[in-house]
Amino acid sequence: MSRSHGRLSIAASGAPRDLMGPRRLARAWTASVATLLPDVFPGPLGASLTGRALQEGLWQLRLTDLRAHGLGRHRQVDDAPFGGGPGLVIRPDVADAALREAREGMQDAPVIYLSPRGEPITHALTKRLAAGPGAVLLCGRFEGVDERVLEAHGAVEVSLGDFVMTGGELAAMALIDASLRHIGGVLGNQRSVEEESFAQGLLEHPQYTRPADWKGRAVPEVLLSGDHGAVARWRRDTAERLTRERRPDLWRAHTGADGDEDQSPRQAKEQGDKPAL
Amino acid sequence: MSRSHGRLSIAASGAPRDLMGPRRLARAWTASVATLLPDVFPGPLGASLTGRALQEGLWQLRLTDLRAHGLGRHRQVDDAPFGGGPGLVIRPDVADAALREAREGMQDAPVIYLSPRGEPITHALTKRLAAGPGAVLLCGRFEGVDERVLEAHGAVEVSLGDFVMTGGELAAMALIDASLRHIGGVLGNQRSVEEESFAQGLLEHPQYTRPADWKGRAVPEVLLSGDHGAVARWRRDTAERLTRERRPDLWRAHTGADGDEDQSPRQAKEQGDKPAL
Repeated sequence: MSRSHGRLSIAASGAPRDLMGPRRLARAWTASVATLLPDVFPGPLGASLTGRALQEGLWQLRLTDLRAHGLGRHRQVDDAPFGGGPGLVIRPDVADAALREAREGMQDAPVIYLSPRGEPITHALTKRLAAGPGAVLLCGRFEGVDERVLEAHGAVEVSLGDFVMTGGELAAMALIDASLRHIGGVLGNQRSVEEESFAQGLLEHPQYTRPADWKGRAVPEVLLSGDHGAVARWRRDTAERLTRERRPDLWRAHTGADGDEDQSPRQAKEQGDKPAL
Repeated sequence: MSRSHGRLSIAASGAPRDLMGPRRLARAWTASVATLLPDVFPGPLGASLTGRALQEGLWQLRLTDLRAHGLGRHRQVDDAPFGGGPGLVIRPDVADAALREAREGMQDAPVIYLSPRGEPITHALTKRLAAGPGAVLLCGRFEGVDERVLEAHGAVEVSLGDFVMTGGELAAMALIDASLRHIGGVLGNQRSVEEESFAQGLLEHPQYTRPADWKGRAVPEVLLSGDHGAVARWRRDTAERLTRERRPDLWRAHTGADGDEDQSPRQAKEQGDKPAL
């Protein structure tokens, strides 16, 4: 059973029919999510800019309920881990059936498993993902998913960071949100994307707005000078100083990888034996 | 205007009254979130384990609507950045009023601004946060928040990673979710927390469950052997190999920081001139 969100959403096992819409929508960036919690989607993605873009058909959301592929009368999706240990692991046959449904019509999209063992999400990764047709996203719960189904589907493991959550849903949403920002029309002002953090491999400079004097705290004078060159220099200098102080790793990558605009050291590292995005 | 979620939720400007509940709830870990999108909460946090824990009063969610503190008839919250540039910045007076409300009764909790310029969220950070009374979380939108309000409230900047989202809400949810896992009773099985990724500074070993033979893909034999020592060795070896291959940075920290169980290199770095958690 799959559900679709968006302007031309089609209910129930409508996966292949998503491609039957007008050309505009047929080519819309698509997030196809396999999850035990389909009801939490679109959630925050349905609000504000990403929500409006969903309504406008600038992207599509497809949901596959892992539970619908569960076994027997109780729709069992998990079982105890071989070798013992706490918790439950999602069965390979169940995850496989769900992934097959989620991948329908998404042949050219990467299959991504949200996992703390994966490649960290970076600005560059979201940009690459946004440039493609979309993503098939498998969200784990419990102790994760049987390893064999990840191998069978050539899943790329992608991580939100060095910490663990109760499931992959929030990581999937974060990845979708960050990718959507690169898609034309999603943000009101595309210049924002080009000038923000990481677009130049630096942390972003501080921002100030009215009132100019707030509780005795003044805005840096240069920002009120009207001297555009001086403002640009101040912003650049401040961004560089912040990056040096807070993120020496990013600073080294920035100064070392001249011209390589959004390389990060963690992303440049070896990826081991796993497929990478 | 603030709203509360949880077993003893109290509507409308009830912030200080949260502390008037029974002792159990009075001491419950509290996430107090200031956001332009209060309606997206609890969202995914209201489902599954974190949702059940919210119902059971194991934690509390308080929401402060930035818009309710906006100026004038249109409840304006933002204005153009000084020095020019795209987008809008949240005004310091508006964010200050919202933060004052969000901080009521939360004197001992850190004020956290979700921002890509911040300290990366790590297992250790979520553990420290869970050990305290909770967190006051400020979610940005647009081009962010006026820098002066962050200084005035001693806000710690915390980042979900080297990428940008349309707002801080998903980052706040991820931080809350990852922190809640350390709170007794939230997970069904607390052993999961101790054995998972990063608890020993390593990525987690692969998991396998039934069927033992799936589409010709067998489970590693040792996991079926019943030899607990051999299983433990295989898992340890596999976790170490995965960490070496995929995350040389984590591996170096693991081997170098002997006994320091969840140190990560990015977390061990200098924090510059900003307060740290």
